[in-house]
Amino acid sequence: MKLLKGDIVHAPALGALETIPDGALLLDDDGTICEVLHEQPQDFDGEVFDCTGKLIMQSFADMHLHAPQFPNVGTGMDLPLLDWLKAYTFPVEAKFADLSYARRVYRRLARDLIANGTTRVCMFSSLHTDATLVLMEELERAGVTGFVGKVNMDRNGGENLQETTEESIRETLRWLAECSRFTRIKPILTPRFTPACTDELMAALGKISAEKGLYVQSHLSENLDEIAWVRELHPDCAQYWESYDKFGLWKDRTIMAHCVHSDARERSAIRQAGVVVAHCPDSNINLCSGIAPVRQMLNEGLWVTLGSDIAAGSSLSGSQMVTMSIRASKIRRFTDPEKPAFLTVPEAYYLGTTSGHRYFGAGNGFAAGDRLHAVVVDDRDFTETPRALSLSERLERALYTMTAANVCAVWSEGRLVLDRRTAAPVRKTAARSRKLG
Amino acid sequence: MKLLKGDIVHAPALGALETIPDGALLLDDDGTICEVLHEQPQDFDGEVFDCTGKLIMQSFADMHLHAPQFPNVGTGMDLPLLDWLKAYTFPVEAKFADLSYARRVYRRLARDLIANGTTRVCMFSSLHTDATLVLMEELERAGVTGFVGKVNMDRNGGENLQETTEESIRETLRWLAECSRFTRIKPILTPRFTPACTDELMAALGKISAEKGLYVQSHLSENLDEIAWVRELHPDCAQYWESYDKFGLWKDRTIMAHCVHSDARERSAIRQAGVVVAHCPDSNINLCSGIAPVRQMLNEGLWVTLGSDIAAGSSLSGSQMVTMSIRASKIRRFTDPEKPAFLTVPEAYYLGTTSGHRYFGAGNGFAAGDRLHAVVVDDRDFTETPRALSLSERLERALYTMTAANVCAVWSEGRLVLDRRTAAPVRKTAARSRKLG
Repeated sequence: MKLLKGDIVHAPALGALETIPDGALLLDDDGTICEVLHEQPQDFDGEVFDCTGKLIMQSFADMHLHAPQFPNVGTGMDLPLLDWLKAYTFPVEAKFADLSYARRVYRRLARDLIANGTTRVCMFSSLHTDATLVLMEELERAGVTGFVGKVNMDRNGGENLQETTEESIRETLRWLAECSRFTRIKPILTPRFTPACTDELMAALGKISAEKGLYVQSHLSENLDEIAWVRELHPDCAQYWESYDKFGLWKDRTIMAHCVHSDARERSAIRQAGVVVAHCPDSNINLCSGIAPVRQMLNEGLWVTLGSDIAAGSSLSGSQMVTMSIRASKIRRFTDPEKPAFLTVPEAYYLGTTSGHRYFGAGNGFAAGDRLHAVVVDDRDFTETPRALSLSERLERALYTMTAANVCAVWSEGRLVLDRRTAAPVRKTAARSRKLG
Repeated sequence: MKLLKGDIVHAPALGALETIPDGALLLDDDGTICEVLHEQPQDFDGEVFDCTGKLIMQSFADMHLHAPQFPNVGTGMDLPLLDWLKAYTFPVEAKFADLSYARRVYRRLARDLIANGTTRVCMFSSLHTDATLVLMEELERAGVTGFVGKVNMDRNGGENLQETTEESIRETLRWLAECSRFTRIKPILTPRFTPACTDELMAALGKISAEKGLYVQSHLSENLDEIAWVRELHPDCAQYWESYDKFGLWKDRTIMAHCVHSDARERSAIRQAGVVVAHCPDSNINLCSGIAPVRQMLNEGLWVTLGSDIAAGSSLSGSQMVTMSIRASKIRRFTDPEKPAFLTVPEAYYLGTTSGHRYFGAGNGFAAGDRLHAVVVDDRDFTETPRALSLSERLERALYTMTAANVCAVWSEGRLVLDRRTAAPVRKTAARSRKLG
């Protein structure tokens, strides 16, 4: 057994925050949470990870990002979606035919995700099968878990960035056959979006999804031009989502990124199908797409998660993803005539952690029986406050101001995958816990 | 003479960016810019600061922030302005009666400003005269230049945070007398905002301003409740700005933070008086105040600068202040029926640098005759891009993604105030410049 000691903050439900000062997580040898302890045990025999005075937070779950766009982070943010795809996105994605380039970029990406406390992802690769396998290798090596999808795109792609329908299907099957070697990264079917996939390809993916029991991720209603384009391509569909539904891709646990312009009818279809929304606030602002009606979605019972959506989002940081969702909800509050309530810090933290982790089968917050996914944040060097802050205030401050420099340990799937604590794990005999905060 | 070599990016005018790869700044011994060189001289006799391969950017000018709120950064962002002042802001400001606390917080603030590349500020202190002098000492020690104001507040303050009118005037005069000992930090008169100052105090400040030739800073039209409150307090004023005008405080170079709800008439008054707008996008979003009509202001010829407005803004970072102004302008684009053009990167960079520096008498961009204000950003560890980026693309990426960790040198008022370059300044004989980027 192992013990992780520190100031615990987790979100067992939307809007609920449990804060446990000087608490501890009791772990199995394989890193499974046995119990969340409100008092530290007096006589403990196993290994102790003493993070006293530091924040033990849930790690972040980034439910929508594009791995091959990582080199574009922070550049080319001056165009709307469809122009931006052509000018910036497709050219960089085409480079991933080069596997050594892919290896270097994806190794850095995986390292940076962990360094920022993100341990679970739903990620788009490019259409390149081999680079996708490289991506999965590098994520697994760094300790990032979750789903990765080889992109399918047999129309309206970029130069050197389009498959034939037959190629796309064949490569998807080849990729899936190779995926059996991964243990913590699983495949997810990834038609890029309706305008990039022919009906024949969509139908084939629907069939593969049903036969192999695979989940699906794609994009939905990000931008008005895109919606109009889908309407032209599928005049028989009253709404964008039906272009996925038609081919068996609109179903339980399908992840749809954005949903900025999803109206009541489309939101109802999302809820009824069990589709999961990946809300990407920074991306939606940067590309002038709009702001998704997240409060309405939550009120209506939709499953909402968060995504960084790099490189339309400008940061890989899970904490910035969370705080940008708060900002977006505030903008919605002062621009939407219905003045929806903005997201509170506990709500946004839940969306960026528990809500995403549940997609991978996790329970609520730090739940007994789950392998630990946690980030330890050292906030002791933050500005001196005039009074001691509560744990929920420290969480808020960490979310708004932390950088990778404050992350001192990360657990993913029960394993300690980043350890920047200066001291080695402290054994029971030496464990004279000193309050530092 | 000295030579600073590197990749130069500066903004000589709104929307104009001059990029000089492998350029150099030729400096006097006191750090005054003699010339911006597009080619590095072959035979140079003086000291060489070799930042080859790094970005030499203008430092940031933060034209509105509250020093005593620094301990609150990243906390308490869930209330609108007037409630937020009472719950979070006034209690922390009251602590600055304690000079040793003030010394510790302000030393850290000054250090963090320089570490993030901000060298010029227009800053609110609290109403405490002695803590304000401590703040000025610490800024001057760290190399931050600009204006600081002891706050005047003789009504509607917080517990232990209000002066009598007589005290406020007397302490202002005592403070001004003490300010003569500072060389790089100057005093600016700082009535907190109309609801916090009686007519008698406002009149006295107007008189002091005129007699001593002092500039003024305050807040304007941040929030609709605040505007309604001012209307109640000054029923004779058709608009908020007139409550300053009435007392001689609305004049050339008066800085007004926010101006979120300034309509055409108020904007016209701003332009005609030569008032300077300090736009604080992050703060305005966090407090649900709204988004200032910056594009309209620029089209109408108003002088717009940027402010971090900590602690309503959640970051001291000048680069985040710049990128948040771009995001805010994009939100305005997709929510304002007039669809104003959003700020381009060169425009926002200008607002966060040159536009602010000009307030202190600087010229346009790196101008000959000005003492150097610059930040050197090491962007070589950013993600590998598939092709070499242009200097303007590197600027965009730095603005969106840099942290203090990327800042490797800062010049303020001609002095090197932060130096994290690993190598000591390279002398001519050893100056075999190697291209690293």
